[in-house]
Amino acid sequence: MRLSRSFLPTLKETPSEAQIVSHRLMLRAGLIRQTASGIYAWLPAGLRVLRNIAQIVREEQDAVGAQEVLMPTLQSADLWKRSGRYDAYGPEMLRIRDRHERDLLYGPTNEEMITDLFGQGVKSYKELPQVLYHIQWKFRDEVRPRFGVMRGREFLMKDAYSFDVSYEAAVDSYRRMMLAYLRTFQRLGVRAVPMVADTGPIGGDLSHEFLILAPTGESGVFYDGELETLDWLGEPVDVADRVSLDKFFSNVTSYYAATDEKHDEDAWDQVPGDRRREGRGIEVGHIFYFGTKYTKAMDISVAGPEGEAIYPEMGSYGIGVSRLAGAIIEASHDEAGIIWPDSVAPFKAVIINLKVGDATCDALCETLYAAAPEQFLYDDRTDRAGAKFADADLMGHPWQLIVGPRGAKEQKVELKRRATGERFELPADEALARVISR
Amino acid sequence: MRLSRSFLPTLKETPSEAQIVSHRLMLRAGLIRQTASGIYAWLPAGLRVLRNIAQIVREEQDAVGAQEVLMPTLQSADLWKRSGRYDAYGPEMLRIRDRHERDLLYGPTNEEMITDLFGQGVKSYKELPQVLYHIQWKFRDEVRPRFGVMRGREFLMKDAYSFDVSYEAAVDSYRRMMLAYLRTFQRLGVRAVPMVADTGPIGGDLSHEFLILAPTGESGVFYDGELETLDWLGEPVDVADRVSLDKFFSNVTSYYAATDEKHDEDAWDQVPGDRRREGRGIEVGHIFYFGTKYTKAMDISVAGPEGEAIYPEMGSYGIGVSRLAGAIIEASHDEAGIIWPDSVAPFKAVIINLKVGDATCDALCETLYAAAPEQFLYDDRTDRAGAKFADADLMGHPWQLIVGPRGAKEQKVELKRRATGERFELPADEALARVISR
Repeated sequence: MRLSRSFLPTLKETPSEAQIVSHRLMLRAGLIRQTASGIYAWLPAGLRVLRNIAQIVREEQDAVGAQEVLMPTLQSADLWKRSGRYDAYGPEMLRIRDRHERDLLYGPTNEEMITDLFGQGVKSYKELPQVLYHIQWKFRDEVRPRFGVMRGREFLMKDAYSFDVSYEAAVDSYRRMMLAYLRTFQRLGVRAVPMVADTGPIGGDLSHEFLILAPTGESGVFYDGELETLDWLGEPVDVADRVSLDKFFSNVTSYYAATDEKHDEDAWDQVPGDRRREGRGIEVGHIFYFGTKYTKAMDISVAGPEGEAIYPEMGSYGIGVSRLAGAIIEASHDEAGIIWPDSVAPFKAVIINLKVGDATCDALCETLYAAAPEQFLYDDRTDRAGAKFADADLMGHPWQLIVGPRGAKEQKVELKRRATGERFELPADEALARVISR
Repeated sequence: MRLSRSFLPTLKETPSEAQIVSHRLMLRAGLIRQTASGIYAWLPAGLRVLRNIAQIVREEQDAVGAQEVLMPTLQSADLWKRSGRYDAYGPEMLRIRDRHERDLLYGPTNEEMITDLFGQGVKSYKELPQVLYHIQWKFRDEVRPRFGVMRGREFLMKDAYSFDVSYEAAVDSYRRMMLAYLRTFQRLGVRAVPMVADTGPIGGDLSHEFLILAPTGESGVFYDGELETLDWLGEPVDVADRVSLDKFFSNVTSYYAATDEKHDEDAWDQVPGDRRREGRGIEVGHIFYFGTKYTKAMDISVAGPEGEAIYPEMGSYGIGVSRLAGAIIEASHDEAGIIWPDSVAPFKAVIINLKVGDATCDALCETLYAAAPEQFLYDDRTDRAGAKFADADLMGHPWQLIVGPRGAKEQKVELKRRATGERFELPADEALARVISR
């Protein structure tokens, strides 16, 4: 994309309404704009980030056998009356009445709808397990929306739902999803630690939240320092094998990690003193086993081997896709701006032309740009170099290809790595190979 | 995808609520399910179709320089009050009140919001033209939703908006979009004819609807028979050159084509008698120039060369993405089911194993499937052959790779082309090459 022709409106001043760094940087870098309280439009660079995140989430869901569907944003109130949640849900649910005076709602989650769809499509225990997910906009009418996309009202979420024939099989599904989540966050370039979460009346230990450690997080967290460096994904896992899944799960959950809500002083005392860490975290995912709560309430069963009715055991699994855009910035930025992980960055690199109008500079920049126009942002504006450097650092492109008249004569560029500040003077083709190979 | 493990619930009986063939086939082939009146969930195969359509639309928008953004589904009523449309819009607008008693609405279109975002980001005439688009769910509260996704209430639309410095430049943007639309529909495997549409109080000839010719269309159409075969895209067009755009546009619009609303008997009489065609059409796109209507009403201007305020000239350009899934089926089906164009099909081919459990059949099927598991549906169910053939024809995969025990011994398969019914007995690798090369 050529910056001179792009809709990438960066801001020099810090917007006063933004209280936390990710919100400030997303506004300043031209990623989002607020259109109503807690509701945002994603501008071209922001949408690229959002789509990169969603695509990684999708690939890792698919890799453990989940199937993607797309449920609508609006739901019938009748569906929620079948589970009993319509009256139970608080004012966070946005209730709507259509022109025929029928009650609708903007879905905050989809347990009822997916259970109903499952029931229409699956009739026999032989078709289990089924894991269905979608990536769709949700709405929760927060009293005080804040922190930009971190706590917006309209937000993009991946929610998956598993249906299994037995408790044991449901545990397998749960563990596969734990694996998918750890892989997802690793690919997103963030460390999200699974922490035991509340299971409510269902009990058991099958509820985990995934928190990115960051000082601006909304939850206090207590965890074993080993978790800062541990490689959960070092050993291959056979997702079709219960023993392999069990080993993986035991390994991941053997270190202490809990939010303040679930903090257990006795267990904490068992953690060696020099490994105890207290901090704050941002919740970006939640996995939860809840058994037959919805299948029984909505009377959705499949036929078992003897023709008997089996109520499938369910779990649900969420990832805050739009929230992650903010959370990744909270975990990865500096004074100058965003530091995008390569996998999430809207552009792999920015090409900075230090002297637009100089034939040699222009020609070299065009050559570089032509190598991967979808992946590069070309700063072809006539602005002064300082402004271009500041915008490049602010927007957080992983690489900067800096082209000045002196280097250009020798077909050389300066390559800067945003994350480390390292600079290399390289022949243009070598610099290109380095950037594109990532 | 392995059919035995997939959520692809086909129906044998014809659902009684479906009045037209595309709706019946989308339900029977397991593409969609209704979740509320005029609101649908897209099941895995349906979502693949929807995404294929959206991706082609996106690529052709990008190719003419449009930039993708993503605006939210809910909008503030205040925004619509600025243009005066809040009170003018009828009961098709879904009006919502949030917990703080603020008025929101589910966007039926986005002129106001994009104009506001444009105004926040673009300050100088030098940054024009700008063409911004998004692909997002919309809501129109139809009195009688029907025909499945063809006339649903929650629907996916691509809407683009152009901002230009002058009328002449706006005409160029309009013509570029005409080109993008013809390329889009060609790639989607349908012939959508541009027809002069109503411009309302703005006047001029810069409004066209694109209609797919199909007997179930909602509009009567009159057109020159040449349009059934004419190749609009035969000549290259330089989108940066006004003369080239003008030549292209004159060529496309030189043949008579109008919906009954705009039918002109005098012009019709000029069409040679043997070329006059009357029929019906399904509207799948609409492009429209409307000048400074919104920029003036909302007081959004850019600075001109002398610092003077210029109100940008706008156009808007819609494509019904979810509607297209139905419209393509209306234009491409037979008694047995859907005939997907290759570019839109959820799977390139189905592998039909005629004898699941036979070691030779199973092995050959697995080899074929492993060649492109994301692109193939593997019918590994234990059902009888007749049921598998019927489902394959119903679901409309472009190719069927049929594997029986006799052929499998010689590593041969039967390859069937769904559109023509042609069958070829081929060595497995040749069949594979034929399917994948498409």
